[in-house]
Amino acid sequence: MKYRLYAPGPTPVPEEVLVEMAKPILHHRTPAFEKVVAEVREGLKWLFQTSQEVIIFAASGSGAMEASIINTFSKGDQALVVDGGKFGERWWKICKAYGIEYDVIKVEWGHAVNTGEIEKRLKEKTYRAVFVQASETSTGVAHPIKAIADIVKKFDQTLLIVDGITAVGVFPLPMDEWGIDVLVSGSQKALQLPPGLAFAAVSQKAWAFVEKSDLPKFYFSFKTEKKNLEANTTAWTPAVSLIQGLRVVLSNMKKEGLEAIFKRHAKMALAIREAAKSVGLKLFAPESPSDAVTAIYGPEGMDAGKIVKYLRDDLNMTIAGGQDAAKGQIFRIGHLGYYDAMDMITVWSGVEMALAKMGYKFERGKGVAKAMEVLG
Amino acid sequence: MKYRLYAPGPTPVPEEVLVEMAKPILHHRTPAFEKVVAEVREGLKWLFQTSQEVIIFAASGSGAMEASIINTFSKGDQALVVDGGKFGERWWKICKAYGIEYDVIKVEWGHAVNTGEIEKRLKEKTYRAVFVQASETSTGVAHPIKAIADIVKKFDQTLLIVDGITAVGVFPLPMDEWGIDVLVSGSQKALQLPPGLAFAAVSQKAWAFVEKSDLPKFYFSFKTEKKNLEANTTAWTPAVSLIQGLRVVLSNMKKEGLEAIFKRHAKMALAIREAAKSVGLKLFAPESPSDAVTAIYGPEGMDAGKIVKYLRDDLNMTIAGGQDAAKGQIFRIGHLGYYDAMDMITVWSGVEMALAKMGYKFERGKGVAKAMEVLG
Repeated sequence: MKYRLYAPGPTPVPEEVLVEMAKPILHHRTPAFEKVVAEVREGLKWLFQTSQEVIIFAASGSGAMEASIINTFSKGDQALVVDGGKFGERWWKICKAYGIEYDVIKVEWGHAVNTGEIEKRLKEKTYRAVFVQASETSTGVAHPIKAIADIVKKFDQTLLIVDGITAVGVFPLPMDEWGIDVLVSGSQKALQLPPGLAFAAVSQKAWAFVEKSDLPKFYFSFKTEKKNLEANTTAWTPAVSLIQGLRVVLSNMKKEGLEAIFKRHAKMALAIREAAKSVGLKLFAPESPSDAVTAIYGPEGMDAGKIVKYLRDDLNMTIAGGQDAAKGQIFRIGHLGYYDAMDMITVWSGVEMALAKMGYKFERGKGVAKAMEVLG
Repeated sequence: MKYRLYAPGPTPVPEEVLVEMAKPILHHRTPAFEKVVAEVREGLKWLFQTSQEVIIFAASGSGAMEASIINTFSKGDQALVVDGGKFGERWWKICKAYGIEYDVIKVEWGHAVNTGEIEKRLKEKTYRAVFVQASETSTGVAHPIKAIADIVKKFDQTLLIVDGITAVGVFPLPMDEWGIDVLVSGSQKALQLPPGLAFAAVSQKAWAFVEKSDLPKFYFSFKTEKKNLEANTTAWTPAVSLIQGLRVVLSNMKKEGLEAIFKRHAKMALAIREAAKSVGLKLFAPESPSDAVTAIYGPEGMDAGKIVKYLRDDLNMTIAGGQDAAKGQIFRIGHLGYYDAMDMITVWSGVEMALAKMGYKFERGKGVAKAMEVLG
């Protein structure tokens, strides 16, 4: 049986990109590779909707999250972390590792942060940054980044640092227009590549704090990488094959166009949400769903992990289960990256087959029909 | 004209491995990928000649160098750095970034460290670690690791941390047998992969200091990665495609056998050294040459950079020039990784064509003949 990957990352890599990355390796200190870097720099600025440099690391997304903290903070600076899931937690875990004091706005899993709470906290204390996920992968929630940016920009000393790992290239996050200060992403999501590259776009407001930052850093230094990128190279040996793939992905994404990309994701996510509801399943994040990943409760009284397991063992498909507290409660389907309408129909059909197998009573095909209606 | 890569890294990737990495992407939290990790763990232990875990990072080699410091050091610990080239420098630059006090044994470029000097320093002061390159890529020098290990093992409080980025899988560095405490490497060298993976094998003696280490770390934490590796997974999203390629490379290397691999490299390096001498060129590191890369002076009074440039522009070949002080003085040819006898004859022929073009007087073909004699 063919292998089918519908997780919220890693996501499938287009055949054309796999082939590009399978070409003989290029040395990174050559004019030929510098041309690739130049093209990628421009493409990333377009994708992140910024005139600023987008830093590229050979690392996974967590590395860029760490970088966004250690490059902007100085000793004594305080952090305000929105923690509404597994990736929200990661922000304060990194702060903790560096001895940075932090306050947490704990958000119930499946819900978006109350922006009023952020404003209240910022008035009480000076924070160097507010940390939040644009799309919290563990819960399928999209936090209201524009509204948060409108608040944070009123505070001169405070940056808005956004984890866009499952959001950049999925739904709008116009960094410069909204006033996001650091926007982080990774290669294995909407960017349709294998894992191994991480990105951080840095605003002018943020660069001022980067200049002053006194936390220890070496490999993940924004300043070192920026200086090198401006010469179309990288400080350390870059992940050459992934960057060559990135060139092709960005070129294809430009051809599709940002508006069309966002629309495609929105439609796929809506199709899965409607399909789930039509067979009587409840959404985990009904009020503020992310178009990157949909989290769905399993049928009442049944282990949602069984759906994941059936898809894995009987259909050779990967979707994601719930993590931590949500384990066994939910299953998650990714829509971000190299997916189209027929992929959503395929994965949803798999889910219906699992539900039937588990003895859940529903009208078989109803969700598929609903998905077709939305996608058609 | 075909592209030919003879730099000391990145090095060519075997076609079979390129094809392996071009297969559809696998999700990393699956039994299928756990099997890959299990196989890779065993293969790395075999290659590093250790019974200890070899930590895998999605990063370039510099990331693993940084990790080897921040995981073993605590505040107040001091470092003794052997600096005999561009990569020796990197050790103390990382120490500096973390506020670690360090002493430097400065070694003239092209020469190996005097081990007596290391012993003298260790008797004068307690250092947490001695840092050294097994193969200093910028100069083509192999430092005497076994002799250094014999000294360092007499000091309970001191670790031997070795940059084996261009040495592991090139010449013998039996970690457990010799008593190396941290041995670092990267994917784009003898491991015949694209850049993007970094490795650090950690001795039992070192783990005791890792447990106590109080320097800040998150992404590069040895402890976090070890715990995950023991469950055949990784803490952060791994560079899936590179690890799948690594599985194939390690399996092929096992088939070739460590002894045969070391012999192949030694023979290729000897061939280039003898070829160079036979046409009257001088070696940059005649006393302690590394079998990973040979650094050769350009003809007297001529810019060695022109050889690199001619190969690049006229023959579409990449070799390396000199860095920093050695710029224009030397050119460097890599032998490490997916190379065989005929590759060495090809690259040396290119060098002879460049020398002739530059007006250097020598008997054309003499170096090639010498190389054939050594390799035949």
